[in-house]
Parts: sequence; structure tokens; C-alpha cells
Amino acid sequence: MSRQPVEPVATQQAIDLRDRSVYVAWGQDIVRYSDLDPNGHVNNGAINMFFEDGRVAFRDQRMALAGKALLTGFAVKKFSVTYHAALGYPATVETGTVVTRVGRSSFELGQGVFANDRCIATAEVVQVYFDPATGKSAPLPDPVRAALEGAMVKG
Amino acid sequence: MSRQPVEPVATQQAIDLRDRSVYVAWGQDIVRYSDLDPNGHVNNGAINMFFEDGRVAFRDQRMALAGKALLTGFAVKKFSVTYHAALGYPATVETGTVVTRVGRSSFELGQGVFANDRCIATAEVVQVYFDPATGKSAPLPDPVRAALEGAMVKG
Amino acid sequence: MSRQPVEPVATQQAIDLRDRSVYVAWGQDIVRYSDLDPNGHVNNGAINMFFEDGRVAFRDQRMALAGKALLTGFAVKKFSVTYHAALGYPATVETGTVVTRVGRSSFELGQGVFANDRCIATAEVVQVYFDPATGKSAPLPDPVRAALEGAMVKG
Amino acid sequence: MSRQPVEPVATQQAIDLRDRSVYVAWGQDIVRYSDLDPNGHVNNGAINMFFEDGRVAFRDQRMALAGKALLTGFAVKKFSVTYHAALGYPATVETGTVVTRVGRSSFELGQGVFANDRCIATAEVVQVYFDPATGKSAPLPDPVRAALEGAMVKG
Repeated sequence: MSRQPVEPVATQQAIDLRDRSVYVAWGQDIVRYSDLDPNGHVNNGAINMFFEDGRVAFRDQRMALAGKALLTGFAVKKFSVTYHAALGYPATVETGTVVTRVGRSSFELGQGVFANDRCIATAEVVQVYFDPATGKSAPLPDPVRAALEGAMVKG
Repeated sequence: MSRQPVEPVATQQAIDLRDRSVYVAWGQDIVRYSDLDPNGHVNNGAINMFFEDGRVAFRDQRMALAGKALLTGFAVKKFSVTYHAALGYPATVETGTVVTRVGRSSFELGQGVFANDRCIATAEVVQVYFDPATGKSAPLPDPVRAALEGAMVKG
Repeated sequence: MSRQPVEPVATQQAIDLRDRSVYVAWGQDIVRYSDLDPNGHVNNGAINMFFEDGRVAFRDQRMALAGKALLTGFAVKKFSVTYHAALGYPATVETGTVVTRVGRSSFELGQGVFANDRCIATAEVVQVYFDPATGKSAPLPDPVRAALEGAMVKG
Repeated sequence: MSRQPVEPVATQQAIDLRDRSVYVAWGQDIVRYSDLDPNGHVNNGAINMFFEDGRVAFRDQRMALAGKALLTGFAVKKFSVTYHAALGYPATVETGTVVTRVGRSSFELGQGVFANDRCIATAEVVQVYFDPATGKSAPLPDPVRAALEGAMVKG
């Protein structure tokens, strides 16, 4: 008597996204003058782009096996960001990414933007997989699932 | 025997942010060619900026009393967005905003980005008030609180 | 005894790009809060994007015949912009475009960004045509040339 | 019989802006995923921002003497860019800047954006000085003029 797997298939204990040591992949960005708000701080919208670049770096570093298809086969469904500190100019930031949950057709990432040791913002991101051919949500292919589970922080 | 007020001071039942009729203020944006991703869709980062413009429109339309100080006295603490549909080019979008909770020194907004009747994305936003002089979190001034409570959707 | 055609094939007298009446196509943009510089003015980079949107509007309005191929078959080679006035927030801008020269494999546009009657910036743009198949510069196809010549301001 | 000083006060022979060795100051940028066009290339608007960051780097490196006033006391009047090559993702770019002319109340810069040894774009920029107090064009202060003349490439 078989049963559908219940989401999530793999998960982990709550982790502290403000701690640099939890991340398994890193991207880098340089703040631009055009990122600055009238108040002289980096605009939240620019910080959101740093998270995006962190996700692309994550895919390049941890999921290369699946090639271009992966880049087109995933979409961000939900993005929840908490801003912890203001960021000025000039600055270089590093964005860490880690997998926190792997479901049947979706997975979750934890992310953090850091300027040196200062945590500027953290985010939780839900990404869904869809079949590039049909455009519909689809189960994660096995090699993708394996790569994702390999990118969860060790308990 | 006095007690500190417990947050939230005013709240409301869960509302459907995909329903245009819940919003009390509207901003407008025009999609730019530079907003497009390699996949031909509007980048999530651009959509996040539409939410920002919606919040500025909200302040201009509902909180004008407090003038410029308000613009500098608030910061986004948390921004949680769900993307519902892809957006192409060209397009004009409207972003609705409504207050969903008023606390002691913070409040929450619900927002929705729409292309005509299509809901592209919804967001929940926590904003904190800080005293522009000290840069520290501070209780909402009474006129600000009154304006916010007046911008909650009617149950 | 044949001779190569000498560029330009069609040109026109110098026109005043600060005069709204010279333009044959118009695009529209809404200033975003994220366009603002630390000095509270719209960033030059945002103004440059308005010119880009004006060019896309020009293609949609005047060169629809050639369809998608046109969008991929042209590249900006040179962009020269003069900034005339500062722009604030909120604002809606209109960007006019006119053809000023048609050569063998390239053409030139004049453009102006306006906030109501105020001219914010003007630009001269050289675009080259390349064969989408080979990626190399190629002579303008006849229907493209005809559309361009029809979009030159009348002397 | 007095005569107005004739611009330019100091100038130099035409230089090759595609040659990295002519530049006296450098800025750096990292391409973002959001910089990409539907065709997969970095948007011209993003490249224009790299030039802006190059100018800010130039001011920080060569004109620090005048401090914040300098940043607010100058405005770009004219920006002429030529795009030489397409740029992909990921990439890091370096933007060089050199002074090419010093006038009475304005000066000119030459700039180049490079990805390693590949020249992506070059630009000529006219900047005008205005008195921050009056907002009107004003003669370059002596220390500013000296710093600018010191940042011209050696013939």
C-alpha cells in the first residue's frame, strides 16, 4: 500500500542565517553609486539583487551538473528578507547560500549578505521546479535532488 | 498597576492580498526594457521596486501630515514577497497598499502588484519607526498612529 | 565603373532636439524612488534608460513591419547625451525619437526626454544593423530603410 | 583692453581610450544577473553605471583634497559612449579614467571599461563645476584645477 511522499523530503533544524559558517556557496558584489538612496544608504532593491547573485553563484558552484536547464527550470516563488544593518558606499559584499529544505517539487534556501563580518540582511527563499518543456511544476529530477541535499548544512 | 501595551495595538482579520478591493492607496509604474531578464520576463528585482514605489505613494497619499520627517523616520525591517505570475514588456503596473497591523513602534503593510486584473505579486512588509534625531526605534507618534489606523481596510 | 555608395544616403539639416515638435514617436516612463541619487535627483543612469525605452517605443510604433528580427538585429554603437535640467520625484517623463540620418548599414536617431514642457536631456544615437544569422554588420534591408526614411522629420 | 580667457586652459593630444595604459585611476564593478538583457548580454545602461563608478573612484583617488564638496559640486553635462564589444555574465570589469581637458569652469574626462584586456566601451565626459552655495556654474577652485591637471596623462 504505497503513499505519496509528504513534503518535505529532507529538512534540517533551524539555523542562524546571521552566522557566516552555515553557508555552502558564496557570491560577490560591489556596491554601485547608483545603488544609493537619497539618504545615502544602499537601496533595499540593490540588496535584493545581491541575494539574486548569490543564488546564481550557488547554482554555478553546486548544481553545475544540470547545466543551463537548471537556470531556466527554477523560479523564485517566495522571497522573505530581513534587513539588519545599513550599508554605505563604497563596499564589497559577499552573499552566502545554503539549502534548508528539499521537497518534492520545490526547495528552500537560506541566504545572508555580509560586508566583512557585518550581516546586512538575511533571506529565506522558496524555489519551485518546473518542467521547461511544459512550463508546469514538476518533481525534482534525481540528480538535482541529490545536489540540493548535498548542499544542506551539516547538522 | 500599569502594564506595557502588548503588540499589536490594532490588527485585522487575514485579508486576501490578491483582491484589488482591499487596498487604500495606489502607485503606478511602467515596465522598462532594462527590467527584462534573459528569459524575457520582468526581473523579480524590478517587481520589488514596484512595491517600494507603492509604499512611497501610500505615504504621500495617506500620511502627508507628517511631511518629509516620515520619509526619513521609517525603515523597512522585513519584506516578504510571493510571485504569482510572470510579467512581460511592455506593461503598466499598479501597486496597492493597505495597513494590516499597527504596533507600538512598528506597523505592517499588505501590498499587491497588478497588471490590469492580473495579480503579479503580493507582499507583507514590516516597517519600524525610529527617531530621526537619535536613530533609535521609538513609539509611533500619535498623528502617525492615527493615520495608519485610518488606512486599515474596513473589516 | 561602379562606386561604393558614400554614407550617408539620406540626412537632414540640424534640428533642435529640445523642441518637442521634431519627434515622430514617443515612449513614456515613470520615475522610481530607486532612481534617486543621494542628492535627491534622478540618477543619470535612469535617464539613460528612458532613452532606451524611447527607442523601443520608436521601433514598436514605426518599424513594426520587421517584427522581432529588428529588435535583435540592431545594436547601439554610440550614445551621446547632454543633460539640461535636474529631475525630481515623483515625475512622469516622455521620450521622443526621430531619425536624423540613414546610412548604408547604420542610422542615427535624435532623442529628447521631457517632463511636461521641460527638456531634461537630449541624445544622439548611432545604431548599426547586423545580420542576425552571421552577427556581422550588413546593409539595411530595403523595408527597414524605407521605414527609417519615413521617420525623419520633415524639413 | 581685457579679454576673456579662452577655453581650454590645458588640453592634450588625442589619446587612444582603448589603451589601458592611458588611465590614471581605476574603479571596479561586478556584473549582476539583473544587468542582463533578453539577449543575454549586459545592458548598455549597466555599462553606463560602470562609467559612473569609475568617475567616483577617480574623485576618491585623485581629488580627495576637496572632500565631499567635490562630489556635490560637479555635474555631468555631456556623456558620449561608444560600445565596442558585448559583455556576458559572470564578469568583473575595471573602469579607467583620465583627465583630457581642463577649462575655466569645466573639464573633460576620457574613460574605458575593460574586462581583462578586452575593451568593452569608451566614453568622453564633460563635467561642469558649480558653486554648491549658489547652484550656478563657477570657475574651478585652484586646488581642484591643480588636482585635475595632475591627472592628465603625460604626453
